[in-house]
Parts: sequence; C-alpha cells; structure tokens
Amino acid sequence: MRQPVALQHASRLVNHGPTVLVTTEHQGRRNIMAAAWSMPVEFTPPRVAIVVDKKTFTSDLLQASGCFAICLPVPALADITYRVGSESGRDGGDKFARHGIATFAGPQLGLPLVEGCCAWLELRRIPEPHTEAAYDTVFGEVVSAQADDRVFAQGRWSFRDDNAALHTLHHLGGGAFAVPSRVVQGRSH
Amino acid sequence: MRQPVALQHASRLVNHGPTVLVTTEHQGRRNIMAAAWSMPVEFTPPRVAIVVDKKTFTSDLLQASGCFAICLPVPALADITYRVGSESGRDGGDKFARHGIATFAGPQLGLPLVEGCCAWLELRRIPEPHTEAAYDTVFGEVVSAQADDRVFAQGRWSFRDDNAALHTLHHLGGGAFAVPSRVVQGRSH
Repeated sequence: MRQPVALQHASRLVNHGPTVLVTTEHQGRRNIMAAAWSMPVEFTPPRVAIVVDKKTFTSDLLQASGCFAICLPVPALADITYRVGSESGRDGGDKFARHGIATFAGPQLGLPLVEGCCAWLELRRIPEPHTEAAYDTVFGEVVSAQADDRVFAQGRWSFRDDNAALHTLHHLGGGAFAVPSRVVQGRSH
Repeated sequence: MRQPVALQHASRLVNHGPTVLVTTEHQGRRNIMAAAWSMPVEFTPPRVAIVVDKKTFTSDLLQASGCFAICLPVPALADITYRVGSESGRDGGDKFARHGIATFAGPQLGLPLVEGCCAWLELRRIPEPHTEAAYDTVFGEVVSAQADDRVFAQGRWSFRDDNAALHTLHHLGGGAFAVPSRVVQGRSH
C-alpha cells in the first residue's frame, strides 16, 4: 500500500532508470506526459534532472507553476504510458479524462498523482534557464515521496515474482517496455 | 558480435536507464568508474547527460581530455561494476589492471572500451561549467556507438531468454542490479 518515503531515499526511486509519468497543474489546467529521460543528480537534497521538451504543454504548466510530479507506472499502465507520451494535451482537452486516468492529490503540492503507480514524487523546479533552453533539461528538488510498500520499503526496491504487477517500466522504443524482473547481486570483494 | 550503431540510434542504447561504466584516458593515465545516473537528452545529435562527481579521478581525466566513454555492463560484470563504483582510481594505480578488465580501443577517440559489455559509446564533453559545478552533471555528444548485435540491432534492443547474458544492469542500491528480462508492449490505440 502507499506509504511515505523518507526524502533521503527519494532518489533511489528513480536510480534504476524507470520511464515516468510527469504530471503538472496550473490554474485549473492539468496535464500528463510520459518521459523516458530522467535521472537523479543528488541524494541529499534529493534532486532529479528530467528532459521535458519546451514545446510541450507540460513544459508550459511546469514553467508557470514552478512544480511537477513524477509517477512510476507499472505493467498494467503500459498502454496509458505509451498513449500519453504520443499526444499533446495542449489542444485536445484534459488527457486524464480522455484516458480515464484516476488521480489523488499530492501531499505537499496538491499535484495530480496517478492511481495504480508504484511510486510518486512531487518536485519544485530549480530554475536553470540555460539548461532548459539548450537541452530541455529541467532540474527539480523532491519535496514529497511515496511508494507502494509491497515493492519499495526501507529505502530499497524489492522486485520479486510475487510483486511483478508493481515493477517499473523502462522504455525501449516504440511502446516496448522492459521490466526489471530479475535481480543480480554484485559482490564487493 | 560487436557492430557499429548508427548515431541517430545511439541515444536508444541508454534510453531505458542502464547503469554504465565510464572510462577515461589522458596522457597515459586511464580510469573506470560506474555511474547509475545518466540519460539521453537528444536523439539528433545524440547527446547524453551523466552525473560524475567532480571529486573523482574520472572527472579530472574527463575535464583534462574533453572526452569519455560509456560501456554497458552485463550480468557477468555485476561484481566488477559494483567494485569500480566503490573505489577511487586516484591513489591505487590502474583500476583496469587491478580488476583484470580487458579493453579495446574506441574507433573514434581511442578510449579504453570494456570487453564483454553489450554496448559502447564514445563522447566529447560539451562544456557546461555551471551545470558541472552545481549538479555534477556533464553533457556529452556521442561520436561513436557500437552494440552487440545479438541484443541490439536495427536501432532496437531485443531482450529475450536466449540472450539473457547480454542484458543491461540497473542499479537498485547496495550492489543489487535489476535486469530488464521481461518486455511488455504498450498499445497506442
């Protein structure tokens, strides 16, 4: 079930390179897109970099509101993830409504978080106009983190056969997502 | 076997968030480290962002030479990946020699690329002093790309049971790596 994650563990949620859903809201308009390109840049404070094309409606809302959320979809959300990554929210009305995407409010910023994901982060944009302009790369600081404790607990992911429905998605291209269902343990000595 | 990858497909190699080995060389000194934090930022030209702690020897060599390589380790390299990510190359001599890591020369820059990986990129640093200082985030442009065609061909990863030894690693923390062995296909309609 959904549980808070200590902020010093928040970067672990995206350490392994999952594709994410980015949600934004500003003055009653909201949007959702998929992003395969994100990474942590710091554990403490927890900071993330993510590529958001400046031509997108998500970028408009992110710039206007100064915040965004990251939700980690699971295999049952592969279709939704592919679809919201393939269409713009600028012209076609609310993408949540169009795709029947249920949300709940984020605990710190009230952003729309997607039901049925396995982890959720709310972030405040760290203004870096040059990097945003040159590389579409937005930096953010995590202000809330939550995860489903059946798959992430005590600051660690645990991907097992019995929680396969809660594993993350990693976009390979063309809507094909790899799922990190096998785990190998490296030995330090 | 190892084959060239067209540069317009190079960003696909790291699209799904693999942990990578970063190699560098300058004036006869070379180093290798592991990095879980990297992402593409552009397909054309192929550009990548990667977090390299500015206190590392890798950062010294990268700054001095203006280039670096990214190699994608496979499950058999999990121990090596964990170890080279846990120790510095500044004081202890050559980490390749210490760990018995075989290399071959990169085709464009001559950088040491790690044998037994499943993909290899050579990159030139794009100087971004502020981002490097504030976030340890280095931008690079890919100038050569190669992959093992048993797992990446025609610009696409193909993770199957029969090539499981060539799958990528995705660091979960503490030397545990998830392996993207299952694939789900999202439908666009």
